[in-house]
Amino acid sequence: MMLFEAGVSSPFASSGLENQIFQYIDLHQNQFIESLKEWVAVESDSVQPRLRQEVTRMVELTADRLQSLGATVELVKLGSQKLPDGQSLLLPPLILAELGKDPQKPTVCFYGHVDVQPAKKEDGWKTDPFTLTEIDGNLYGRGATDDKGPVLAWINAVEAFRALKIGMPVNLKFIIEGMEEAGSLGLEELIKAENQHFFSNVDYIVISDNLWISIRKPALTYGTRGNTCFFVEVQCGERDLHSGTFGGIIHEPMTDLIALLGSLVDTSGRILIPGIYDDVASLTEEEKKLYESIEFDLEEYKNNSGVQNFLYDTKEGILMHLWRYPSLSIHGIEGAFHEPGTKTVIPARVIGKFSIRQVPHMNISIVEHQVIHYLEDVFSKRNSPNKLKVSMSMSAMPWVADVNDPLYTAARRAIKTVFGEDPDMIRDGGTIPVARTFQNITRKSVMMLPIGAADAGEHSQNEKISRHNYIQGTKLFAVFFLEIGKLHRQLQEASNMKTTN
Amino acid sequence: MMLFEAGVSSPFASSGLENQIFQYIDLHQNQFIESLKEWVAVESDSVQPRLRQEVTRMVELTADRLQSLGATVELVKLGSQKLPDGQSLLLPPLILAELGKDPQKPTVCFYGHVDVQPAKKEDGWKTDPFTLTEIDGNLYGRGATDDKGPVLAWINAVEAFRALKIGMPVNLKFIIEGMEEAGSLGLEELIKAENQHFFSNVDYIVISDNLWISIRKPALTYGTRGNTCFFVEVQCGERDLHSGTFGGIIHEPMTDLIALLGSLVDTSGRILIPGIYDDVASLTEEEKKLYESIEFDLEEYKNNSGVQNFLYDTKEGILMHLWRYPSLSIHGIEGAFHEPGTKTVIPARVIGKFSIRQVPHMNISIVEHQVIHYLEDVFSKRNSPNKLKVSMSMSAMPWVADVNDPLYTAARRAIKTVFGEDPDMIRDGGTIPVARTFQNITRKSVMMLPIGAADAGEHSQNEKISRHNYIQGTKLFAVFFLEIGKLHRQLQEASNMKTTN
Repeated sequence: MMLFEAGVSSPFASSGLENQIFQYIDLHQNQFIESLKEWVAVESDSVQPRLRQEVTRMVELTADRLQSLGATVELVKLGSQKLPDGQSLLLPPLILAELGKDPQKPTVCFYGHVDVQPAKKEDGWKTDPFTLTEIDGNLYGRGATDDKGPVLAWINAVEAFRALKIGMPVNLKFIIEGMEEAGSLGLEELIKAENQHFFSNVDYIVISDNLWISIRKPALTYGTRGNTCFFVEVQCGERDLHSGTFGGIIHEPMTDLIALLGSLVDTSGRILIPGIYDDVASLTEEEKKLYESIEFDLEEYKNNSGVQNFLYDTKEGILMHLWRYPSLSIHGIEGAFHEPGTKTVIPARVIGKFSIRQVPHMNISIVEHQVIHYLEDVFSKRNSPNKLKVSMSMSAMPWVADVNDPLYTAARRAIKTVFGEDPDMIRDGGTIPVARTFQNITRKSVMMLPIGAADAGEHSQNEKISRHNYIQGTKLFAVFFLEIGKLHRQLQEASNMKTTN
Repeated sequence: MMLFEAGVSSPFASSGLENQIFQYIDLHQNQFIESLKEWVAVESDSVQPRLRQEVTRMVELTADRLQSLGATVELVKLGSQKLPDGQSLLLPPLILAELGKDPQKPTVCFYGHVDVQPAKKEDGWKTDPFTLTEIDGNLYGRGATDDKGPVLAWINAVEAFRALKIGMPVNLKFIIEGMEEAGSLGLEELIKAENQHFFSNVDYIVISDNLWISIRKPALTYGTRGNTCFFVEVQCGERDLHSGTFGGIIHEPMTDLIALLGSLVDTSGRILIPGIYDDVASLTEEEKKLYESIEFDLEEYKNNSGVQNFLYDTKEGILMHLWRYPSLSIHGIEGAFHEPGTKTVIPARVIGKFSIRQVPHMNISIVEHQVIHYLEDVFSKRNSPNKLKVSMSMSAMPWVADVNDPLYTAARRAIKTVFGEDPDMIRDGGTIPVARTFQNITRKSVMMLPIGAADAGEHSQNEKISRHNYIQGTKLFAVFFLEIGKLHRQLQEASNMKTTN
């Protein structure tokens, strides 16, 4: 197993083939950026039901691009979702595509998504979120890093091979969805249904949908937190009331809701729901060491966040609370007054939104039960006549992989070739539920290979990808094809030698 | 003082003059409704800065109507307001109008406003809020009752006198503003400036900008609560963050804000800010009796609210907590996620909005100090590195009048004539700061004469005025002109007799 040792530098010097590919990519960078601009211009926001058509249009555009690469593309219908108001809304189709079927080559399946988080200029964007705009080497636009840029970088890498008439060292498969930002509805069922079909001959699964931990140093991701999102609805009647006409004589739903939300987490960030920490994996000495070797600039991370003081002062404290301990965030309230200015309203029906980031080995069903039970208990002590409804709107399991897998070795070598240094081996505090889902269902080797820097601002205002990361990311994917192809050949040869010995 | 005793029935039977006026008003009701439809169609929302032009347009439309009645109209410029973001926004002009100058007649000044609360169809309106729509005898539309309907009813009443060529029994003055829903900016300064000019020859001031306490029984209002609105801003940085990337390692502004808002009021509706009840007027036996005589249908009031259970079970408990005790309502949060669905965001800057309804003899400056001091104290105990800013965005004093004034007697008689019964003598839990301002500055007799029923839904979805109330309200104002004219003559005659004796 010497070949797959962690931390080993690439045994392959930058070859003529690689140089040829790098040259092509450098020469065509403006064309690649133009493609990204076209994609960012599509407001494929999967969160807001009214924009569903744009998501579908984005998926179809992506399918066209894959077809023009020579891939066979299937658009899979996923059915409908049920909205909170009871209405039914069609899900966008999902892409299954295939490029190459050589049984001598490994088959790598790439996962990405082409839907985006909501964005509005007035939320504080310096540029229009749906017009990719280059300023000082950065490409600003919703989806630039999450996740249109990485999907296109993968496509660009394949295009380089095609344009240069270099044979692909791997068979490729693509699974591209349009509902990632809204909980990947329908995806898990599809993976289950396709496990014995589309996935049967897949060797490796690569996901590029997260960030490095630093602004400049690449990273490989071997784990993510999960998530459970909750709605807490309190209602007193059907219509909003005037605080002059009813203030002082009714149990106001906002007062109940604020008390419920206020019972969730203490000033140190500790979650107050009884039992919530019971199943959290205990910290081993081996895991502790992993954190020590990570190059992590606390000040840089603070600067990226715009926040002056974190809850923890050390690298280890920060990383552990992002990666291996759960957290609870309150996102907002639906139904209350939210505009600038003053409105003396008593909202009749308010819905608090919060989420808990899951870690190994928390169980989603247990967490759901704990949250509902706790909030119902807090509410019952208020003696309020209002109606309470607590529901889990979305959930995703956490995921952890084995960092000694060949997939990780190939990626580490490619990073060394393109970026000149070894990557940080990191986890992600966010949720890529698909990683866990792929591993659980297909039992294939799964890896996350990000190209977005820590300051990309995904889910935030002024999301961006740097021109450098987008172009080097394209090179990284191309070299990764070469490395995993080589490694696969070596593995086969080793296996053949064993057989002949 | 026998003439002005409370509860006395009108000594004047419905006269030929009154019948002539009633007939005219009944015959022209559709025309009056058409006028209201035109006014409701103007989205004169004074809360949202982007709609300021519409408010100004509405004020100008009103000025045109008053001019066509024969009034001399002045549009007074009020300068600008400073928005929270530091920008300056022009205030709409204010109308000062005058109709008649006969020194033998009393001069009645009418106050109303033509701006409205924000409204959007998607907030839960059954009809378009800016298209007046009649359904089952009710006229639905934003401003139907608050306050375009009452302003037009007053104008309609004058039109009846003009059309029938009946001499007006009173001189009229009008003060109509366009910033009531946004705190009547500039109004107090104007009243002060005009006290020795426009108001010098005014005898009585009538305000019609509130509701009856019942669906069917008219009321006269002799007091209102005040209000103080607060903004509580908590900020951690300049841009929103992703809860996957920062959840668990920062002090989230929403967590701080929820804790601050959660410290304001307990489950029984009692305000937790130390000292807030210190200056509340103590309850006398005389005041207690006032509540006992009011016809108040608790079940009807509950049905109007859509709320099943109030904090108090008795009529007195309800009315006292609406009128003579302060209340605190939390209206909402600006800057957090407020749309349907899920967004795993950590908002960087959130502003909680709440208000405290003031009662005699609470002092606004003291309340402001108590609130700011308390919230800063609660925040300091959290050891949060975030920035807190508490500010009072708007304030209005409470107001109470003497119910034995001639103005109230005339109104009581007019109500008896038009509606056939004595009014409830009530206060209003809401804020008509102008009532207090008029009384404080001009020292004139001030009265509130509502025509909106308890289920009008002002500030709420599906605001309405019934056709009956709108048309009977027009008659009420016409008869009120006759009654106050007569009463004034009798007062003068009594005064002359005294002089000649």
